[in-house]
Amino acid sequence: MIFSSSLLENAVNEFAKLPGIGKKTALRLVLHLIKQDVNDVAQFSNAIATLREEIRFCNRCHNIADGPLCKICSNSMRKQEVICVVENIRDVIAIESTQQFNGVYHVLGGIISPLDGVGPEQLQIDSLVERVQKENIAEIIFALNPNIQGDTTIYYISKKLKPHPVKITTIARGISFGGELEYADEMTLAKSISNRIPVENYITAGN
Amino acid sequence: MIFSSSLLENAVNEFAKLPGIGKKTALRLVLHLIKQDVNDVAQFSNAIATLREEIRFCNRCHNIADGPLCKICSNSMRKQEVICVVENIRDVIAIESTQQFNGVYHVLGGIISPLDGVGPEQLQIDSLVERVQKENIAEIIFALNPNIQGDTTIYYISKKLKPHPVKITTIARGISFGGELEYADEMTLAKSISNRIPVENYITAGN
Repeated sequence: MIFSSSLLENAVNEFAKLPGIGKKTALRLVLHLIKQDVNDVAQFSNAIATLREEIRFCNRCHNIADGPLCKICSNSMRKQEVICVVENIRDVIAIESTQQFNGVYHVLGGIISPLDGVGPEQLQIDSLVERVQKENIAEIIFALNPNIQGDTTIYYISKKLKPHPVKITTIARGISFGGELEYADEMTLAKSISNRIPVENYITAGN
Repeated sequence: MIFSSSLLENAVNEFAKLPGIGKKTALRLVLHLIKQDVNDVAQFSNAIATLREEIRFCNRCHNIADGPLCKICSNSMRKQEVICVVENIRDVIAIESTQQFNGVYHVLGGIISPLDGVGPEQLQIDSLVERVQKENIAEIIFALNPNIQGDTTIYYISKKLKPHPVKITTIARGISFGGELEYADEMTLAKSISNRIPVENYITAGN
């Protein structure tokens, strides 16, 4: 791409560094910004600058926070004794959007994956064990993606937590709501049979 | 989406205002930025801020410029007597990328489209006529999209330019290079037959 302005070129190149945004999309976004009000664009660039400069991570759950503790950890209405263990911040947002969980979180910052060079020591596992030792935790719920790495991580952490009197659960894996048995993969179908639940539990949980 | 940080929420909302970017994509981009170096993010937000504040439009061709004249208009190596008339800045960039045109441009800023409420007075048509009157222009090349609005615009401007001794041409419309006759629409195929060119011209133009 050949530009008639270095300001334009600069902005397009910066946008094109973002994941999934190529030169053409970057140009479209930049030309959109040029047409906007000066104050709106200043607000946009400010939001990005302050985000990176002022963002903090919660000292307790490692979620994104504005201060030393995140909004969820500092909310006294939430059950501080139930911890949901997730891989990353996107998973926290996904679970929060269901509005079905009233406990707190622990963000591991990844998942055990030897092939990608990620071992337990790179993740927030020690700090989770410490939380269980120091705080009065009743239950740990694993909400990790259902794959080998997720299962490895659950196994590793469960073993570390064994000496502590804490209930350990994982989110249910089975046929998606609205899904069809016919098209489900064998692994999921097999797991959903072996992990079958009493209908009375299912009906209560649904309400 | 429920966020644990207002800085995060703010940045996601700002990104989601961009065209074609939804909340999920915005979140992905913001989480990417959080992981980048502070200086890189500052550079990104700076590029956007200075773009909108300092961007100018060329006094002559209305293309984006860093100063009073754009890089193309102020380049003495380009034929200032050949003007290519385009709808918008994206078209300038598309033509520049071919590296086949060595003249200058005139950006109309839109196209005559009564249905969208765009009339000739909203476009840079008077300034084009003025350029033809004042500068020593040899040729006007219309590079507008081949549709009713494009043709209307060409017709309107050509009529305005009639009193002036300037050659008026339009870019060729026909079957795309690499395209197949079988799949071309009737209109394009019909036009490509009625506007056929002598093979000797075609071969010369190809080299």
